[in-house]
Amino acid sequence: MERLRIAFLGPAASFSHQAALESFGPSAVFSPCLSFADAFAAVQHNEVDYAVIPFENSTNGSVVQTLDLLADRDGLYSDVVVCGEHYLTVHHCLLARKNTTTVPSAGGGGYRFITKLYSHPQAWGQCETFLSRYFKKIERQDVSSTSKAAEIVSADETGHSAAIASRFAAEYHGAEILEANIEDKDDNTTRFLILRNDRSKRTKCAVPITSDAVDIDGSSEAPTAKWKTLISFMINHNSPGALADALLIFKAHGMNLTSINSRPSQIRAWQYIFFVECESIPGVHDDNSVERILEGLRKVTESCRDLGSWKEQLLREG
Amino acid sequence: MERLRIAFLGPAASFSHQAALESFGPSAVFSPCLSFADAFAAVQHNEVDYAVIPFENSTNGSVVQTLDLLADRDGLYSDVVVCGEHYLTVHHCLLARKNTTTVPSAGGGGYRFITKLYSHPQAWGQCETFLSRYFKKIERQDVSSTSKAAEIVSADETGHSAAIASRFAAEYHGAEILEANIEDKDDNTTRFLILRNDRSKRTKCAVPITSDAVDIDGSSEAPTAKWKTLISFMINHNSPGALADALLIFKAHGMNLTSINSRPSQIRAWQYIFFVECESIPGVHDDNSVERILEGLRKVTESCRDLGSWKEQLLREG
Repeated sequence: MERLRIAFLGPAASFSHQAALESFGPSAVFSPCLSFADAFAAVQHNEVDYAVIPFENSTNGSVVQTLDLLADRDGLYSDVVVCGEHYLTVHHCLLARKNTTTVPSAGGGGYRFITKLYSHPQAWGQCETFLSRYFKKIERQDVSSTSKAAEIVSADETGHSAAIASRFAAEYHGAEILEANIEDKDDNTTRFLILRNDRSKRTKCAVPITSDAVDIDGSSEAPTAKWKTLISFMINHNSPGALADALLIFKAHGMNLTSINSRPSQIRAWQYIFFVECESIPGVHDDNSVERILEGLRKVTESCRDLGSWKEQLLREG
Repeated sequence: MERLRIAFLGPAASFSHQAALESFGPSAVFSPCLSFADAFAAVQHNEVDYAVIPFENSTNGSVVQTLDLLADRDGLYSDVVVCGEHYLTVHHCLLARKNTTTVPSAGGGGYRFITKLYSHPQAWGQCETFLSRYFKKIERQDVSSTSKAAEIVSADETGHSAAIASRFAAEYHGAEILEANIEDKDDNTTRFLILRNDRSKRTKCAVPITSDAVDIDGSSEAPTAKWKTLISFMINHNSPGALADALLIFKAHGMNLTSINSRPSQIRAWQYIFFVECESIPGVHDDNSVERILEGLRKVTESCRDLGSWKEQLLREG
């Protein structure tokens, strides 16, 4: 069988790369996309089988670039659908070039040889406690990604620089991990979406709420697994209750909403496109619930689109 | 009467400064706040009478920093309410130090004396057509605000630098406008919210939907003016239809929803706090509609909060 081609939001060793590898395993061929739009275009034009892009972070909220591309205002990505998701907990490490430094004893604070730190701006804020303990007056250099930071310090022959990046980036660039899990909060999680081309014959269609649904990794579905569906729609914003009417259709089919987002429609100012994610359970919900919801939405919205269904990966506590 | 004290999101000559000046007139005392949190704190601690902060842009969507502070997860801003709004159309100009250059004839492209451009990263993207025509290979220096860019070029005695900034920033810093309205889209509008302290006796309370409502500028309300109300709430996200139930309460009172936003609750991962803005018309809606909506919401939400009401400023077409 031909190897699966997977695009991820780049550069190499990014969190999207890690999510892609965890989702598809090492036998696939992975290629970085330097923009969100490139990842969507690669799926639309069948240059890849799947793309893995961030959708939501448990602390920072929605990724608006992904929502704007899913809105597809210019009809460039009409065949792109969501067929899976992957949750990745964000851990940061302090890392440096291999073999040029003596690794200090854990927590010993023996980091005096480090005179410059590299990382993505967001990572500084996520590791404040650690940084204020050991690196109070050390110069910080912003770079475009934590992976890039790992690459820079791996190549620094002086050995006097360190990066804040993931374990994955450290291993990818052959850097030494000086200290792991230096983030302030240990539950910072990013949810990635897996995209496919709806017309592709190479990739499997994840059909929701049927007994023979097949997951993208080929395993068959546990009967109690939940499924998620993402639907976008626009309403007539001058009509009172139009949004409530749209959401009532989900309720009428007993579907719980797991997220709702809105973005400017960019057709008229102060009009929005809504993204609703809902949850269904095979055996509890009808096989054709999603189709019926779309039928209902067509009557009360200006436009609506089924953006795909997939098996939920989140293990909820309680 | 003591002069009104107005905080705005800084620095001086920012778009928030302009919105504040247009809302309150030149007799007020204006002070910049370098962060969104500083503006909220200044209102909460009665250091100012009002604060003016951006809430939403017609192209880029919601300003998440404002939503996160309105969410008030730590109860720091319990007295801060919204009491007004202001719409500002975003226009950009090309500007340089005064009197050091010959102003070229309009569209003449006589900008060869400019060797470096300063602006905020977002402004480059909003003026692409103009920049690609006249400044294809000219160095671009990112700065923290368009106002800062205007300040830098005003102080540049060589006269070889130019900034992209607002007319307001040009006038504030005494710069020369070389070309006005160089933005690609002429309908890029930002909506600002005006905040006050709900317990303040110095500022007027804008009471919605009553005949004696008083606007913050002291004028009495036209009987057909629309009023907006902002309400936040959290729902039990495991209950199907909980969000639809909440929105139905607005519909039951005939209130149109003009925006809905969500942010991570940061109490539990993948739980959200919702922000709903609704519209009412005095004489059409009951005087106590908002109070009744809140009563209804208390029954179906985990928590809810009235974030204030104000007279709508937007002139809708059609």
